[in-house]
Amino acid sequence: MILRDHDTIAAIATPLGEGAIAVIRISGEHAVGTVDEVFRGHAKLQGVPGNTIHFGRVVDAAEKTVDEVLAAVFRSPHSYTGEDSVEISCHGGVFVANRVLETILRAGARQADPGEFTKRRFLKGKIDLSQAEAVADLIHARSEKALWVSIGHLQGRLSTRVSELKSELMHLCSLLEIELDFSEEGISIVARAEVLTRLQKLQRKVADLISSYEIGKRYRDGVLVVLVGKPNSGKSSIFNALLSESRAIVSPTPGTTRDYLEEALSIEGVLFRIVDTAGLREVSGFVESEGVARSKGLLSRADVVVVVLDSTVMSSREEALESVRDRRSDCQVVLAFNKIDLVRGSVARRDLISMEGSSWHEVRLSAKTGEGLDLLTQALVDSVGVGSSETESGLRVTSLRHVEAFRRVDRSIQQSISSHEAGMTSEFVALDVRRAVDALSEVTGEITTDDILNDVFGKFCVGK
Amino acid sequence: MILRDHDTIAAIATPLGEGAIAVIRISGEHAVGTVDEVFRGHAKLQGVPGNTIHFGRVVDAAEKTVDEVLAAVFRSPHSYTGEDSVEISCHGGVFVANRVLETILRAGARQADPGEFTKRRFLKGKIDLSQAEAVADLIHARSEKALWVSIGHLQGRLSTRVSELKSELMHLCSLLEIELDFSEEGISIVARAEVLTRLQKLQRKVADLISSYEIGKRYRDGVLVVLVGKPNSGKSSIFNALLSESRAIVSPTPGTTRDYLEEALSIEGVLFRIVDTAGLREVSGFVESEGVARSKGLLSRADVVVVVLDSTVMSSREEALESVRDRRSDCQVVLAFNKIDLVRGSVARRDLISMEGSSWHEVRLSAKTGEGLDLLTQALVDSVGVGSSETESGLRVTSLRHVEAFRRVDRSIQQSISSHEAGMTSEFVALDVRRAVDALSEVTGEITTDDILNDVFGKFCVGK
Repeated sequence: MILRDHDTIAAIATPLGEGAIAVIRISGEHAVGTVDEVFRGHAKLQGVPGNTIHFGRVVDAAEKTVDEVLAAVFRSPHSYTGEDSVEISCHGGVFVANRVLETILRAGARQADPGEFTKRRFLKGKIDLSQAEAVADLIHARSEKALWVSIGHLQGRLSTRVSELKSELMHLCSLLEIELDFSEEGISIVARAEVLTRLQKLQRKVADLISSYEIGKRYRDGVLVVLVGKPNSGKSSIFNALLSESRAIVSPTPGTTRDYLEEALSIEGVLFRIVDTAGLREVSGFVESEGVARSKGLLSRADVVVVVLDSTVMSSREEALESVRDRRSDCQVVLAFNKIDLVRGSVARRDLISMEGSSWHEVRLSAKTGEGLDLLTQALVDSVGVGSSETESGLRVTSLRHVEAFRRVDRSIQQSISSHEAGMTSEFVALDVRRAVDALSEVTGEITTDDILNDVFGKFCVGK
Repeated sequence: MILRDHDTIAAIATPLGEGAIAVIRISGEHAVGTVDEVFRGHAKLQGVPGNTIHFGRVVDAAEKTVDEVLAAVFRSPHSYTGEDSVEISCHGGVFVANRVLETILRAGARQADPGEFTKRRFLKGKIDLSQAEAVADLIHARSEKALWVSIGHLQGRLSTRVSELKSELMHLCSLLEIELDFSEEGISIVARAEVLTRLQKLQRKVADLISSYEIGKRYRDGVLVVLVGKPNSGKSSIFNALLSESRAIVSPTPGTTRDYLEEALSIEGVLFRIVDTAGLREVSGFVESEGVARSKGLLSRADVVVVVLDSTVMSSREEALESVRDRRSDCQVVLAFNKIDLVRGSVARRDLISMEGSSWHEVRLSAKTGEGLDLLTQALVDSVGVGSSETESGLRVTSLRHVEAFRRVDRSIQQSISSHEAGMTSEFVALDVRRAVDALSEVTGEITTDDILNDVFGKFCVGK
């Protein structure tokens, strides 16, 4: 383990594919010397200062040129990993970049594991664990909000908040311990009411963080919107209208399958993944029961279900309820009354089910004329509470790992409050306060396990 | 045009996708100042020396951090383009890299056209046109030979040969012109036989280059091998055996379709794209005539056709001939007698057609036992003459544009020889020699047109 964390590692750090430039990253105590084995430039890289760039050739064992490259040299601790490092920019072809990497590996480097460069950065103490996780989030960010929230965490905004909470808890802890030392003499330095007040204040702060996850996870992962409705209600028309309306269609997602259409678009900086289930039951040869099963699976993952209703025909309460039956309990519902261009002046039919569940959003629109589309996008934003009214600087918990740690913090504080109120000794109260501190330390990785580290860094791409 | 070649251009230079690092390249007289508008580091980049790297943040108009980046500064003429340049390494996500690029564009840069950085490098005289083309070849290289041949051209091996030919031709030209000046006085400085010898020697050198294209294009583009044969002859077994035999299977090609299987493998450093047509006529619902049409199309593109024959059944000459009827005239044929494990000791049946065309290669093998597979790969290598006996340092013409120019050089030299032999004046002979020089200048781009430049650089990726 010690050895593996200090040897020289190398990996292609740019995405696989053809481009102008590929970057091969090498890090470790002997990184510069290893590269010198196969780099031919004006001078040995071992003699050059850090943060400088040098033109040269990478050569194979027979001194044949593999590529003409630029080598950027970084000196410990002024590098990504904190170790001596080299970044080689070669021509951006798949074959040539792999050949350059192979050449470096033959010179003595080891192929890096996924996330190993960032893991070393963490182990060197240049970032904490929540910042390391923000690196992965930033790379995977597909929307403005996802970008801001991950950049905020990368710059240590979550870490700072965790530190503040920790130091307050630790201060409280030391006060409780002082009280303990003097308790035999009957001196209570900290008024019991004061301790309670402080604990409750801390609990509220932690609760704020926990509740921020609801929106934070949507910033990070996007909002899954599923369009349902009877054939000919106009699901596909609304799907297409939403996409063409949006000026910020993002690239197709890997999750798109032939069974249903999924497109992603950005509304007020948030990624909405819109799924049209139109094809689910209608594609030829598709067994009805299988269609239903897939539809169920989608609904159970949906954050918002848009029930598309045809304003020109009678829709029953039962039908609308049935179509959203398989949704999660926290899934929002938007009733979209389509084809209003055909029923101008008449709103009678829709009233039939508009009384249903007051928390359901209702929109009247026409996919054909475009009228009311803005109301639908607004309903999507409102239904999941990701509106722009929110300040972008608001701290948001985005990771399940973090929110679970904060929930443990919350439980420990609650426990200490209960102990305190039950008149337990300060020793007992302090015990739970210390547990809360430990849970906070898990967020930043001051307390961690190999399992947690493997889990966090295993999700990274190789080269990061 | 002048303006477009000197303003500040920017593009993402790494492949699109998720990786650790993305690089945004900016070049132009005001490149460093443009980046300074949105870069926040310890110091303004305009004040730093070239070939140095600086940590900082890229910020948007509201001074919000878009990403934490490294900025590498290059000073004219010591940069890729020869202009002042900056390479920004940001986090390698699609969204974040595009946001950084957008920020740079808002600061006043223009999105670069495909190949525009390399075009500027060419226009600044840092490389000639054949070297610029080698950059694209290097990026697209998918085999060892493709890599070596493009690296050789990038390092100017072809350019050097062209220069040598040009200076010899120009020397000859000046001799002919001197002769011209003195011809009235009846003095022939250069013996007529001497001129002829020199021209013929040059012609042979050019012919060598032209003939090198045959193999050069296969180094660059690979060899297309199509397996044909009757159902159950074992095409798919041989296809799979070839692939599993090879230790150097390369990544699937973009050209792979569901209609037929194509896999690429490297044999002796050359890329072989092997196509199994097994599925062409056999997939359910596939119209027979369409299958035949596609098969025809494939055969007309094939460099080698492998006719797979079942050794256990009688094969007629006519069947074998019919199956390769649609091949190009320069396409090689390999007869692969499969299933020899089932006919051990008996070679009678294969003799029926083994007398056919003596230039056809013949191999006896068993895809099942693996016997003779090495003979098949050797036959593939031999049939297209790309064997390893060849020195890797041998200069190879790989581009159609180049070989066509060399053919014009050849014709002009031939013309000058004819004129010379017909006793025409030196003036006439020199005219064609000068034409040959011009054709050579097209290879290196000393003589060029916008059309040629657009054609060459239009094939590049954006960012190169």
